[in-house]
Amino acid sequence: MEKISYKDKANILIDALPYIQRYHNKVIVVKYGGNAMVNEEIKDCVMRDIVMLNTIGVKVVLVHGGGPEINDMLKRLDIESKFINGLRYTSKETAEVVQMVLAGKVNKSLVSLLGHHGGRAIGLCGMDAGLIKAKKLDNGTDLGNVGEIIDVDITCITDALDNGYIPVIATVASGDDGEIFNINADTATSVISSALKASNMILMTDIKGLLRDKDDESTLIPEVALSEVSSLKKSGVISGGMIPKIDCCVDAVRRGVGQALIIDGRIPHSILIEVLTNEGAGTLFK
Amino acid sequence: MEKISYKDKANILIDALPYIQRYHNKVIVVKYGGNAMVNEEIKDCVMRDIVMLNTIGVKVVLVHGGGPEINDMLKRLDIESKFINGLRYTSKETAEVVQMVLAGKVNKSLVSLLGHHGGRAIGLCGMDAGLIKAKKLDNGTDLGNVGEIIDVDITCITDALDNGYIPVIATVASGDDGEIFNINADTATSVISSALKASNMILMTDIKGLLRDKDDESTLIPEVALSEVSSLKKSGVISGGMIPKIDCCVDAVRRGVGQALIIDGRIPHSILIEVLTNEGAGTLFK
Amino acid sequence: MEKISYKDKANILIDALPYIQRYHNKVIVVKYGGNAMVNEEIKDCVMRDIVMLNTIGVKVVLVHGGGPEINDMLKRLDIESKFINGLRYTSKETAEVVQMVLAGKVNKSLVSLLGHHGGRAIGLCGMDAGLIKAKKLDNGTDLGNVGEIIDVDITCITDALDNGYIPVIATVASGDDGEIFNINADTATSVISSALKASNMILMTDIKGLLRDKDDESTLIPEVALSEVSSLKKSGVISGGMIPKIDCCVDAVRRGVGQALIIDGRIPHSILIEVLTNEGAGTLFK
Amino acid sequence: MEKISYKDKANILIDALPYIQRYHNKVIVVKYGGNAMVNEEIKDCVMRDIVMLNTIGVKVVLVHGGGPEINDMLKRLDIESKFINGLRYTSKETAEVVQMVLAGKVNKSLVSLLGHHGGRAIGLCGMDAGLIKAKKLDNGTDLGNVGEIIDVDITCITDALDNGYIPVIATVASGDDGEIFNINADTATSVISSALKASNMILMTDIKGLLRDKDDESTLIPEVALSEVSSLKKSGVISGGMIPKIDCCVDAVRRGVGQALIIDGRIPHSILIEVLTNEGAGTLFK
Amino acid sequence: MEKISYKDKANILIDALPYIQRYHNKVIVVKYGGNAMVNEEIKDCVMRDIVMLNTIGVKVVLVHGGGPEINDMLKRLDIESKFINGLRYTSKETAEVVQMVLAGKVNKSLVSLLGHHGGRAIGLCGMDAGLIKAKKLDNGTDLGNVGEIIDVDITCITDALDNGYIPVIATVASGDDGEIFNINADTATSVISSALKASNMILMTDIKGLLRDKDDESTLIPEVALSEVSSLKKSGVISGGMIPKIDCCVDAVRRGVGQALIIDGRIPHSILIEVLTNEGAGTLFK
Amino acid sequence: MEKISYKDKANILIDALPYIQRYHNKVIVVKYGGNAMVNEEIKDCVMRDIVMLNTIGVKVVLVHGGGPEINDMLKRLDIESKFINGLRYTSKETAEVVQMVLAGKVNKSLVSLLGHHGGRAIGLCGMDAGLIKAKKLDNGTDLGNVGEIIDVDITCITDALDNGYIPVIATVASGDDGEIFNINADTATSVISSALKASNMILMTDIKGLLRDKDDESTLIPEVALSEVSSLKKSGVISGGMIPKIDCCVDAVRRGVGQALIIDGRIPHSILIEVLTNEGAGTLFK
Repeated sequence: MEKISYKDKANILIDALPYIQRYHNKVIVVKYGGNAMVNEEIKDCVMRDIVMLNTIGVKVVLVHGGGPEINDMLKRLDIESKFINGLRYTSKETAEVVQMVLAGKVNKSLVSLLGHHGGRAIGLCGMDAGLIKAKKLDNGTDLGNVGEIIDVDITCITDALDNGYIPVIATVASGDDGEIFNINADTATSVISSALKASNMILMTDIKGLLRDKDDESTLIPEVALSEVSSLKKSGVISGGMIPKIDCCVDAVRRGVGQALIIDGRIPHSILIEVLTNEGAGTLFK
Repeated sequence: MEKISYKDKANILIDALPYIQRYHNKVIVVKYGGNAMVNEEIKDCVMRDIVMLNTIGVKVVLVHGGGPEINDMLKRLDIESKFINGLRYTSKETAEVVQMVLAGKVNKSLVSLLGHHGGRAIGLCGMDAGLIKAKKLDNGTDLGNVGEIIDVDITCITDALDNGYIPVIATVASGDDGEIFNINADTATSVISSALKASNMILMTDIKGLLRDKDDESTLIPEVALSEVSSLKKSGVISGGMIPKIDCCVDAVRRGVGQALIIDGRIPHSILIEVLTNEGAGTLFK
Repeated sequence: MEKISYKDKANILIDALPYIQRYHNKVIVVKYGGNAMVNEEIKDCVMRDIVMLNTIGVKVVLVHGGGPEINDMLKRLDIESKFINGLRYTSKETAEVVQMVLAGKVNKSLVSLLGHHGGRAIGLCGMDAGLIKAKKLDNGTDLGNVGEIIDVDITCITDALDNGYIPVIATVASGDDGEIFNINADTATSVISSALKASNMILMTDIKGLLRDKDDESTLIPEVALSEVSSLKKSGVISGGMIPKIDCCVDAVRRGVGQALIIDGRIPHSILIEVLTNEGAGTLFK
Repeated sequence: MEKISYKDKANILIDALPYIQRYHNKVIVVKYGGNAMVNEEIKDCVMRDIVMLNTIGVKVVLVHGGGPEINDMLKRLDIESKFINGLRYTSKETAEVVQMVLAGKVNKSLVSLLGHHGGRAIGLCGMDAGLIKAKKLDNGTDLGNVGEIIDVDITCITDALDNGYIPVIATVASGDDGEIFNINADTATSVISSALKASNMILMTDIKGLLRDKDDESTLIPEVALSEVSSLKKSGVISGGMIPKIDCCVDAVRRGVGQALIIDGRIPHSILIEVLTNEGAGTLFK
Repeated sequence: MEKISYKDKANILIDALPYIQRYHNKVIVVKYGGNAMVNEEIKDCVMRDIVMLNTIGVKVVLVHGGGPEINDMLKRLDIESKFINGLRYTSKETAEVVQMVLAGKVNKSLVSLLGHHGGRAIGLCGMDAGLIKAKKLDNGTDLGNVGEIIDVDITCITDALDNGYIPVIATVASGDDGEIFNINADTATSVISSALKASNMILMTDIKGLLRDKDDESTLIPEVALSEVSSLKKSGVISGGMIPKIDCCVDAVRRGVGQALIIDGRIPHSILIEVLTNEGAGTLFK
Repeated sequence: MEKISYKDKANILIDALPYIQRYHNKVIVVKYGGNAMVNEEIKDCVMRDIVMLNTIGVKVVLVHGGGPEINDMLKRLDIESKFINGLRYTSKETAEVVQMVLAGKVNKSLVSLLGHHGGRAIGLCGMDAGLIKAKKLDNGTDLGNVGEIIDVDITCITDALDNGYIPVIATVASGDDGEIFNINADTATSVISSALKASNMILMTDIKGLLRDKDDESTLIPEVALSEVSSLKKSGVISGGMIPKIDCCVDAVRRGVGQALIIDGRIPHSILIEVLTNEGAGTLFK
């Protein structure tokens, strides 16, 4: 990068001006997961992007998953995973491990990392101040302590945002009787984004975006209208693991989120590129 | 309790009035640990006491330990404890477990429990918003990732109190290079209480209080002036495990805390009895 | 009461927790009158109950009568009472005495008493800051300076509540030409409660509550739905002096008050028992 | 007044501009008493002057006496006045009458009158929210329930002023045991003015001001420096009933009041003339 | 004016009380122009009137023209005026002079003058903080840089009023491409008054008001209902230069202004007379 | 610039993060003048830099000169410049032109330009709300209406900054008798920066910075301690037109400004490069 003149540097900064103006005081919810959580260099980029957005006046909320670390701990504790119809069953013991790893290890380590880049972050989970009220997921199959969201009370997030903090959220929650539920992080992101009437919801994934031909990255669809989703499902363009992610996007936009994006978490600074430059990244739903 | 007339009930409530008036809008920091954390019934009482104080207008901060749960997890993970000069050495791996168990399991479970009694609690640790800045403890012996406090930034606690939340604090913190440090909970309570200029600091222990004869509970010393501490140490009344706890009390009062108490955590509702009735519990330092 | 253990004390306090939570920041308007004003011991209990509620975060408004003290002063001043159709006629001279005794003696003495129990009270009457605009009561009989309420401006009450004061209200008011009107305290309580959208309105009386058989206290009706009032009147259960009091309750609930109660002012701490325990007192209208 | 042209009217208004600017948001405490309270026409002028000052942004506090009305009521109640060394003894019974008449009749009638001129006034006495803490006057002679001020808590006055109200104050107060004390209104005005750091304190009297020759109004001394008071006393210019009044002025200025004035309450609109025109009225102490 | 007694002075001030009460915290927009800007004595009166209203709590906005000073400068710069169908054509060069004279000379000199009378004024034009967005006037004739208002953003005016300043407004604005537009001051006053939901809009003119017979000032019409305007136009009473002025009044009232007035700017203190006395000046539209 | 990858763009943005964090909510006062005002392209860059800083949370104040436009207008108006001892004499007529051009043309055009880049700017001069109180410069030579600053009242600047506006300031002011004074813009910048306790004061000039050899730009002195200034003057490094500019820097830092800079206004985006990158520009005094 040494070859870039200070003139070019200034121009790049100035080019970001209209984007900074557009998102000033707006709420952006980022779902952080997948490869971007595993690769240490990219993790560092994501943290700096988040602190950057916070610093220039964007209200950023970070929701995270933590699959690999949970699996790792389950293995170390010799807790075997049971599968029902191909879906993982979450035992009470597993749910406790999920809470511990997500809310104690992953969440607070992210908070610490944001702090080392100058951000003032606060680590919350669904149990804090009634953020997420959950119950046992009811979809025909008994998956144990997998939960679905009954209600959210986002007061603790908005209080944190109003005081300038970056809320970092682990998606475990408790039920009426105090039982621990593991909540799907994409779904929680969508519900929280809607409750916050977020301007943008960004889901970080391990793919380029929605591809017309899933084996050819050059066929990326940059923007999808909600009305097109149904036919893209029929034609098989939206299929497999993309279906629930895109359903989260559709739900979010339907319930008041400005726009939802699926971006490529494998690229360094993909969030900053998406938010502060005219370089489109991933697929936009609105 | 059925035999108590409603007249007596009313009188007991009214008797609490001057205490409620005295502590209104005052800050009370409670260190929660020992037997009171293990016994489920007493845990429930403590949680309800905390919610009660919060509800009647006291600003309560709950700092907690978690020794047994940490040991249990270390055992399950086959991490052996090394001892140096009789002091436990905290390896990097152990420190990670401490963070996970304290900030993820113990902390958020307390937050959840407070929530089930109607309290709005938020679970924080030393890493949140720069609450505790730590470095390797420097006392002549290399104890690994045992930390000491360099600085505290209590803004996230006061912000939480001002918004009516009950801050619940796990005493793990990170150092300049992001390393994880385990901080002694009594010490952290003392430092935080001082920074908050708390009205009261209450350390819950597994003893009756400071006893003149440690084998005779009837020799409880109800109140100790700071000036007496030195001679009580010389005479051996303050000895063994009591020394660091009482040093925390002395430090707190010297740095501006109104009064510090050592109370018996084995008695149900010992906090409420201490704060809202004329029944003295434990030993008061001021 | 010496026999009550500190354990039982703690339990009684804790039992009050859900009630304290329920009424936190809610407005409760208490009409204080009858025997509870005459009996010095009970007066003291009422004052302490009011200060207690204020201290734990309830917004209490105290409206009071003062019949006996007015009659006493009229007698001392040799002002004879004229009766028209069995109703007392309020001459201009009498109205001046009513203002003086209610707003100067009864009101300020209650304010002083609340102050001696640690409450910060402010004594207001209908003339303060346009609280009550009145005109001559128009019910077919000329009762002189008996007034009815044209309008209320509760700003001075809400300002006082917002600053943490206990407003104490004497129900004299002035008319357009500055004439003094005596306003029925039950009616004023009902109108003010409605304007405040109070959570609870409590009328203290000298009876147990609404009794199915007025000579048998065991026939107390604990709760009455508004829809039942009409048939209870027809059947004569609601009769005589109870009719206007219950009409005030019905009007208040119809105009937005959460619930209205008639409680027995002869019992010490009946307000506290009603608000902070599960012991029902009197009759509830909702 | 018909002959005044609209041009002259405009000029008179405009001439008031610098005075309005000077007193904007300043606190002026007026002691209202003597002839100005008895003469109905002048009372009306005073009330309108007070409302006028409040409306143009001055923070006015009205402290009042009520001697004639108290005497009248004592006579009607056949309560004889006892005198000790020429000073009136205030019995407990008399103190009750003082409270009733001052706080109930005079105070609330002034409040009502201010309301009829468009002012929002609130009637307080020393008992409201701990405004005046009093004890038995200790000056060598037992005068019964005559009190002196131990302490004032002006919070209820400043809260009222901040909300735009005109506080009207009757100078009765209660002691530690709830006994009623009659407080000299001039003294109370001085103490309250000092606590408020008032810009101006105005004492309305029945004389022209301080006269060099008390029988010749043309010898009015328009301004007196504090340093001159002592020699004016020696020379007998300040004598008799003027001594305590001027002592109040001196005390007020010494404790932080901008200036203290003795004005002629027999002249209509003497307050307005003093505050809003260049016509000096009475004698100024500073 | 020496002959006016202080009694009369007091009465004149007191007579203003109901008017001061009525306009307290209300917004009054004054269009200042014509003879009142040229005559130095009257200019001084207007400035003092404005400061007076500001001081007694009215939120005054001053919008001004500046025809004579613009013409004078155009002449000095040898810029000739072109006329099209009898209407003056504003060249780009002329528009620059208009901006310079109005926003730099007239505006800031008024601000300075208000300051010398104790007012805190701020000089704004349509370019400040997007106050007026303009485009080329589209009425069939090309008049060059004469603009019409597309949109107003009154935030900078309300911010100034909330901070106690007197906003003084020059009616030049810029278009989308940065071109300078001269905006008719009467029209701008009307649009700004509407956006502010002003209580009063006052247009200062060089005539007595609307006259039934334009040559006889005794035929002044003191008040016109909007519904009468159309027939007054038909009958020729409203004609010539009065038509656009009265259209501004009608538009303002239709869009939410309380009342619009045309007053005689040739009379000293005509604003104060209109606002603070019962002397009607000019013609009122409502 | 097309060759810059989005990765590099992201890195440049991220590199600005620590600078953005450092200047968040800090006050930076920029003196804008010289070539940067004449060259349209650079003017555009400066405006965008200012809007950028404002958008990311810096409180920017822009003070400007306007020499060339003033001279141009004086020439067009045939006003000849008189010189006394080589210094220009400012006649009353000239002062009027200065006010008109600076406050009306230059100031409002900058405001308009900032608006076109999305900034909300407000154009003020020394006359607004008493910002600058001036008197005739007293330095031995009569220079006519050249003024020096007696006092500043920065309330209108801080009010504007608190509401998010960019204050743009023309340095004309009025004296006690309303006479117009032209104030040196560098001096005014220094005085205003001090009063604001600005973090940074930046003077834009037409040179590279302070050069050890004024003919060799490679001898730029990047940083000068205040203590070095005196010897640099003696040695002739600081000489000629640099002396008053550097005196302004020294004065500002002495009176509480964090640091003062002289930067090269001929380079596009020199402000942004200075504030948001590690590329030093010009000479820093601290």
